[in-house]
Amino acid sequence: MSHILVARTEAVTGARRPAVWPLSGSRRPLSSAEVELTGGVLRDWQRRNRSETVPHTIAQLRATGNLENLRRIADPALGAGTLFRGRYPFLDTDVFKTLEGLAYELARGGEPDGEMAAFYDEAVSLIERAQRDDGYLNSYFQASDVVKEPWTDLAWGHELYNLGHLIQAAVAASRQLADDRLLVVARRFADLAVDRFGLDGKDAVCGHPEVEMALVELARETGDERYLTLARLFVDRRGRGTVQPSIFPAEYFQDNVPLRELDSVTGHAVRMAYLAAGATDLVIEQGDPALARAMEHLWDDMLASKLYLTGGLGSRHSDEAIGDRFELPSERSYSETCAAIATMQWAWRMFLASGEARYLDTFETVLYNGYAAGLSDDGRAFFYDNPLQRRPDHLQRSGAEAAGELLRRAWFVCPCCPPNIVRWTAELQDHVAALDGDTLHLAQYAGATVRMGGLELELTTDYPWDQRVTVDVRTAAPGSPRLALRVPGWCRGGSLTVNGEPVVTEASSGWLRVDRVLATGDRLELDLPMPVRAHRADARVDALRASIAFARGPVVYCAEQADNDTDIDQLLFSPADVPLATAVAGRPTPNSSAETRVITVPARAVAPATDGLYPELGADEEADAAASVDTTVTLVPYYLWGNRGAAAMRVWLRRA
Amino acid sequence: MSHILVARTEAVTGARRPAVWPLSGSRRPLSSAEVELTGGVLRDWQRRNRSETVPHTIAQLRATGNLENLRRIADPALGAGTLFRGRYPFLDTDVFKTLEGLAYELARGGEPDGEMAAFYDEAVSLIERAQRDDGYLNSYFQASDVVKEPWTDLAWGHELYNLGHLIQAAVAASRQLADDRLLVVARRFADLAVDRFGLDGKDAVCGHPEVEMALVELARETGDERYLTLARLFVDRRGRGTVQPSIFPAEYFQDNVPLRELDSVTGHAVRMAYLAAGATDLVIEQGDPALARAMEHLWDDMLASKLYLTGGLGSRHSDEAIGDRFELPSERSYSETCAAIATMQWAWRMFLASGEARYLDTFETVLYNGYAAGLSDDGRAFFYDNPLQRRPDHLQRSGAEAAGELLRRAWFVCPCCPPNIVRWTAELQDHVAALDGDTLHLAQYAGATVRMGGLELELTTDYPWDQRVTVDVRTAAPGSPRLALRVPGWCRGGSLTVNGEPVVTEASSGWLRVDRVLATGDRLELDLPMPVRAHRADARVDALRASIAFARGPVVYCAEQADNDTDIDQLLFSPADVPLATAVAGRPTPNSSAETRVITVPARAVAPATDGLYPELGADEEADAAASVDTTVTLVPYYLWGNRGAAAMRVWLRRA
Repeated sequence: MSHILVARTEAVTGARRPAVWPLSGSRRPLSSAEVELTGGVLRDWQRRNRSETVPHTIAQLRATGNLENLRRIADPALGAGTLFRGRYPFLDTDVFKTLEGLAYELARGGEPDGEMAAFYDEAVSLIERAQRDDGYLNSYFQASDVVKEPWTDLAWGHELYNLGHLIQAAVAASRQLADDRLLVVARRFADLAVDRFGLDGKDAVCGHPEVEMALVELARETGDERYLTLARLFVDRRGRGTVQPSIFPAEYFQDNVPLRELDSVTGHAVRMAYLAAGATDLVIEQGDPALARAMEHLWDDMLASKLYLTGGLGSRHSDEAIGDRFELPSERSYSETCAAIATMQWAWRMFLASGEARYLDTFETVLYNGYAAGLSDDGRAFFYDNPLQRRPDHLQRSGAEAAGELLRRAWFVCPCCPPNIVRWTAELQDHVAALDGDTLHLAQYAGATVRMGGLELELTTDYPWDQRVTVDVRTAAPGSPRLALRVPGWCRGGSLTVNGEPVVTEASSGWLRVDRVLATGDRLELDLPMPVRAHRADARVDALRASIAFARGPVVYCAEQADNDTDIDQLLFSPADVPLATAVAGRPTPNSSAETRVITVPARAVAPATDGLYPELGADEEADAAASVDTTVTLVPYYLWGNRGAAAMRVWLRRA
Repeated sequence: MSHILVARTEAVTGARRPAVWPLSGSRRPLSSAEVELTGGVLRDWQRRNRSETVPHTIAQLRATGNLENLRRIADPALGAGTLFRGRYPFLDTDVFKTLEGLAYELARGGEPDGEMAAFYDEAVSLIERAQRDDGYLNSYFQASDVVKEPWTDLAWGHELYNLGHLIQAAVAASRQLADDRLLVVARRFADLAVDRFGLDGKDAVCGHPEVEMALVELARETGDERYLTLARLFVDRRGRGTVQPSIFPAEYFQDNVPLRELDSVTGHAVRMAYLAAGATDLVIEQGDPALARAMEHLWDDMLASKLYLTGGLGSRHSDEAIGDRFELPSERSYSETCAAIATMQWAWRMFLASGEARYLDTFETVLYNGYAAGLSDDGRAFFYDNPLQRRPDHLQRSGAEAAGELLRRAWFVCPCCPPNIVRWTAELQDHVAALDGDTLHLAQYAGATVRMGGLELELTTDYPWDQRVTVDVRTAAPGSPRLALRVPGWCRGGSLTVNGEPVVTEASSGWLRVDRVLATGDRLELDLPMPVRAHRADARVDALRASIAFARGPVVYCAEQADNDTDIDQLLFSPADVPLATAVAGRPTPNSSAETRVITVPARAVAPATDGLYPELGADEEADAAASVDTTVTLVPYYLWGNRGAAAMRVWLRRA
């Protein structure tokens, strides 16, 4: 019996902690021991993750060299240490992220998966053996044919970024499987980092933030405050130009302005959001009011000027950067899948720090749109960047480029996103509910069982397609928590009944607080009306003026050419027709086992303009309207686009 | 007396040929021996080029290593050949482009400039001595510390691109100065290229097109058809994936689709336009109807869907690429200065191939906008890329990045643009007029003297600020050419008088053809009404919907924050107010010696929206209009933006 299977049997289910486990403050997320996804979209995603994305990712990690890199360091007798595959110094993290996800999947039990356990054990063993005596671990820098010495290129070396993902995998393995092998490795590496970069160490930071939130979690898991101190040093040191960039500006690394003084999220999107998540962890643990205000300002500013309708972050392909305020072009939206995960991590911590539901609204927006779009319907192909538009013209681009931009790919040379999806989907249940004092807060809605403090709830819903969420109280003991249910920001007129009786509750700041003690057998029915909504953008977003986008519940919709005979670039939508939009059952992918909702809405199809690219004003602009033909357009959930072959797509449509 | 000064005295003025000198077809551009710019903007630009940009560029080429690279190859005894400055294999071309411009400036005479002549002689001598015995010349590949062998990296090596610029410098030196030293070097290198890549050579092309038009010109200058054949091979071979890219897709190199089958200009913008210019040279010389149709299709498609209002080409920073049809974001417009020059080179050749004035309209648009913006008012700083918008937010970006994006820089690590400006400004007079059969066509308007075929004309105008162009016939001999004057596409109601008498002329396809024999003393007065125009964009350009831009004559205008108290992002312009726009004299730069015209136009200033980034439709969108304040906005010529410190700018403004 392998170590891991022993570990699984030894794991004390009730002791499992979630991915984020604050020591301070009043809020505690529920863990995988307390929340199980049992139905609906999130459960389907988790199943697909286990059955498709995990095996695919393991196969790719084996085939493309990530595991081989570690093996060659671990087993120099095999002639290793002399060869290195791949050109990036962060390829170990793809193994780490996968292990983080595997810890959850192995703990979840279910049908045994030999390969999943075998990969886990093999990788853990290689990691243990690849670590240097002094605790250092990075197969790129340790390779004998890599010229650079460790710690000589903090801007691009990603060594502390690697440490961060190692820690997160180790904490997950410890919490989910009671397997401390990786934790031993991670602590040795973290101790080395404390020695080198701690209070008495070098005044430096890593070019890629990530380790900050990991160090906070390591402190939470081990009780060792040195890791918390190091995280704070990394947050406070950044912004003084100590990262010596080669070709990227200091802004790319968030090293141009101290985080507390930063006016707006900036630079490389993933770096920015990981950094903000780590800083917010410090707010949770240390209650620093100035840092809390800085984080709230950055968040609010991002929501007001820099986040895509889909929750995507990053407007530029160049430098994978966030861009200026109101610079939100649909076709060049970068919105990296990793940035979506980082934004959710930041949102979750902002909620834990404040208790405010609005952060969960954004979490939900990202989850069902910018994040979900990153994975194909079959779970085996990925978008790295997530545009909100692909023009018909794009189909004529040449092979390789078009394939990557119009269709998801099986893997990437820089494969950061796929294993990030693996871990994030595996730990979704850790982000569904949180206890705050004596009140259990339901943060996201899904078919689920929730057990904690003598309370057992059964959530039944077809959310986000259906507006009804049923909460059956299977068990309630004296002293069981009270309940607060989130009413999403997009919802008007959310209401609740208990045992069929309308309940007048205090709905404040996005929470419906059930002001009574729950009893076994109670049935709560939450109704979140989901009419089709139409949105416009602030006029300062040049790219979206005179545009309209449709959404229903948390799901943003798009027009795909596959569903429409008329060129989707030649459709005009009238605000007056919005009330005629209807949501109907539909399966807009070949593989979907479950029905989603598609939207049908009236529009006019107009002929392309023929008066040139820049006509002089006064020419008959409205001629096209006269020549229009009434039609009905079908819109599908944005996150499902690109699953039916290469085709044009747009979220934002022309507004009449 | 230096060789060059001897050469200058020996140069036969009348024999000077222009930059493009077709052997076939009916059109012959006039040369610097026939056209002299004597007044107005183009003359000012040429003077500034000589007095500021040329000395600045020479100093930079000396300081940053371009010349030093050649010296270390030429004089290995100095320990050279062992060191190489700069990381690009195309840095010799910056010397070549500067020499091309110097050939014109030295030939132009005027106040002697010792440094100009000294640099010319020194560089020519180094180039002569750096050339290998077999004709090869590239200081990067010849350096002993560069590992790559010549011709082993055609995708990125730029060796034939280097040859192209060497040829163009050599042809200019030969034509302007009767100095054949560079021509000897260029022919030896070109002969090597014929051997390696000619009919019996390797089936390959350079990753960066440029050599095609240079080889055609070399064939014109030398009468050697082998160079024409090689140019044709390079055009016809491209598009079959023979360029093996490292990180760029084949499309970047225009190597994905054969040029004759290409549906739309694509890939790297400068590469595309240089390639198209070279192919059009082949059309001129060989009259290939299929290739001519392909070039016309690509041109028309570009004008209809891919060229910025300013004549800029290239919508993406990533890969410096052209982008999809209708993908024309203002803030991320790349519109490289070199692409502007390449587009003008292509336009000039399309005119020479067809005689059609519309190509000259685009030439003019690029000249006064996308091209001119690349240089600072003081002639010593440059934009590499030329956006049509800088948001107020952009001012908060960090030092180095903001400096490069908001203000022109003295030089670049990749300094292709500055010396390209040097040569192009120096040879502007070669693109002012052309003889077609017995008719002299005036292509661009400027204060100028034009002498040819017994005809001497004096053009007096304050174009593009003033609508009047006066043409005095100083001398006309029997058999002197007739005259055709271009009526720009933006002009409605252009009219002509001869000696005060209205002349009924045939205005067809953009030409006013004077249907009479000119006599000494005749005065022609061309009137090109220049009301302020307002333009909108095709609704398929998402980035420009509900936007308005102002222009007058060939000059596109922009709002700069420096001229306006109100946030320029919060201004609303009504089409109804366009007739109230007026052009008044103004000097919107600190250094300008000459007055330009600025535009004043009524607008409303509105408060920023406060209902979020993506309000649900139905919210009171027009509230801001109610809260508006009437104001008057000042607009300045786009090409002069960014000369008064870092500030927000926009060409396209919000339309009420």
